[in-house]
Amino acid sequence: MEYGEINRIFEENDKFLILTHKSPDGDTLGSGFGLCYFLRDMGKLANVVNSDGFPDRYDFMYAEYKDQDFEPEFIIAVDIADVTLMGSGLAKYQQEGMVDLCIDHHISNKHYAKLTHVEGQTAAAAHILYKIFKESGRKLRDITAKCLYTGIATDTGCFKYENTTPETHMAAAELMAYDIDFANVNRKMFDVKSKGRLKVEQAVTGSMEYYLNDKCAMITITTELMEKCGADPAEFDGLASIPLSAEGVVIGITVKQRHKNVYKISVRTTEEMDASAFCGLFGGGGHIRAAGCEIRGSLEDVKALLIEKAGQVLGI
Amino acid sequence: MEYGEINRIFEENDKFLILTHKSPDGDTLGSGFGLCYFLRDMGKLANVVNSDGFPDRYDFMYAEYKDQDFEPEFIIAVDIADVTLMGSGLAKYQQEGMVDLCIDHHISNKHYAKLTHVEGQTAAAAHILYKIFKESGRKLRDITAKCLYTGIATDTGCFKYENTTPETHMAAAELMAYDIDFANVNRKMFDVKSKGRLKVEQAVTGSMEYYLNDKCAMITITTELMEKCGADPAEFDGLASIPLSAEGVVIGITVKQRHKNVYKISVRTTEEMDASAFCGLFGGGGHIRAAGCEIRGSLEDVKALLIEKAGQVLGI
Repeated sequence: MEYGEINRIFEENDKFLILTHKSPDGDTLGSGFGLCYFLRDMGKLANVVNSDGFPDRYDFMYAEYKDQDFEPEFIIAVDIADVTLMGSGLAKYQQEGMVDLCIDHHISNKHYAKLTHVEGQTAAAAHILYKIFKESGRKLRDITAKCLYTGIATDTGCFKYENTTPETHMAAAELMAYDIDFANVNRKMFDVKSKGRLKVEQAVTGSMEYYLNDKCAMITITTELMEKCGADPAEFDGLASIPLSAEGVVIGITVKQRHKNVYKISVRTTEEMDASAFCGLFGGGGHIRAAGCEIRGSLEDVKALLIEKAGQVLGI
Repeated sequence: MEYGEINRIFEENDKFLILTHKSPDGDTLGSGFGLCYFLRDMGKLANVVNSDGFPDRYDFMYAEYKDQDFEPEFIIAVDIADVTLMGSGLAKYQQEGMVDLCIDHHISNKHYAKLTHVEGQTAAAAHILYKIFKESGRKLRDITAKCLYTGIATDTGCFKYENTTPETHMAAAELMAYDIDFANVNRKMFDVKSKGRLKVEQAVTGSMEYYLNDKCAMITITTELMEKCGADPAEFDGLASIPLSAEGVVIGITVKQRHKNVYKISVRTTEEMDASAFCGLFGGGGHIRAAGCEIRGSLEDVKALLIEKAGQVLGI
């Protein structure tokens, strides 16, 4: 879709409901609240909803947000590639024809909405919204710019990852012209961790073992370790990058217990190895640098098998 | 100095020696090698030196670098605010009048060189060099752009910190037009840690204690813990940000043993507290968010004193 067409939709409708994805991150929230504030500034009614509520972690975006009281007439999904990502709290919007417009940057978008605007090459949904808002010629409020910056920074790992483009940096430069206190936003997003998470990372790093001339590092997250940490199960997500953070490691393996003798394996690799091909050996798959599979057996057997196959691939 | 004037110096001289600071980081090395490659591409002779050698960590900048054989006639210091930062290996350049030109971004620069160009508002020395190179109209090689990007990313924490400006992002956008594999650079700089460092961080995070309704977090690095880790002493540097990484903490205190009953205290604070004023209570000082002091006494007494004073400041 043309940005002008999307802006016309904003102008021609009055009562908007904005859907954000479950387990919300900075991009879906930054996109959702950025759009909400933009629409409200146009004199429209607009609310943001999420299946899981709005986490404290990002409250700088919605500390002063209050729901408005109205019956939605136009429903927009932001950063939601598939209806299943809406979560149970937004189940009623998962039915066909419920969502009027979807704005997303996942090339895998299922085109479940009546109208879909996808830019697979844009690093964040919030960046797409920024481009749409810019086309409108309307002035943004500081909080709107802050939401958009947050979305862009989130999905690029603060401009660290491969999906960052010159255009991403240009957008950041422009958004910094607003009063957005970006350094504090970044601190909250990238440097601050819950006490539970710190404990979990400490325990997991402590379990790290090195194999194959230290080219392979492995962490093991057993049910026992999870219970010992006493932290929320969500704190055990996203740990798979840890083994690859050790210098010289080319394959980082995370072995996470699902049930007795059932292990979920997450693999991360440097450019020296194909994670997807490696997980394919066990019936799994994924991307070239990040993939996964499931292996059944005793922990010892699972680990031994992984190390044996990794050794074969690396020729060690 | 005008950029044109600096470019004239590059043109009018032929045999350059480039000094980088001791314990080299991505900015001094990125500036040094970026300048070296730029000068060599002009047909000049140029070498880079450092008191401590060039770490493997940054070898993507100098994997193919070889010293040239010549007698230096013009000496340039990059990112070196003070002669003491040259280190013992470069002692002979610390004498007055030895350095011809210093290019730096530290406002505290001591102006020890015959000519000094300082931009205190520019986040990285490498960014200053980029602006100089741009003014020359000369084309950069990919490796030169990669060095400059590395310097800029290093000193801004990958565009995370307050010193990042719209201009910083614009420079990054322009440098990304070259083939610089920036995602891999960032992975090596920000995500990869030595095995020793991982062990140290794990041990130190394990020692973290919370006080004052969890608004104060403290880590303690004793000689005993350092010995137990068996890691290089340098791996214990730069840990002071860890206590402030716990959610809700407004003052993070690092207590590091120097000798028996002598402790070096590093303090980091959020916007709710003044680190410099706090350390001033113990005869220390520093910046508003990062400061330090030294306290003598038993570990128990030192910790109790710090917690008591922090409680008074926070009114807890």
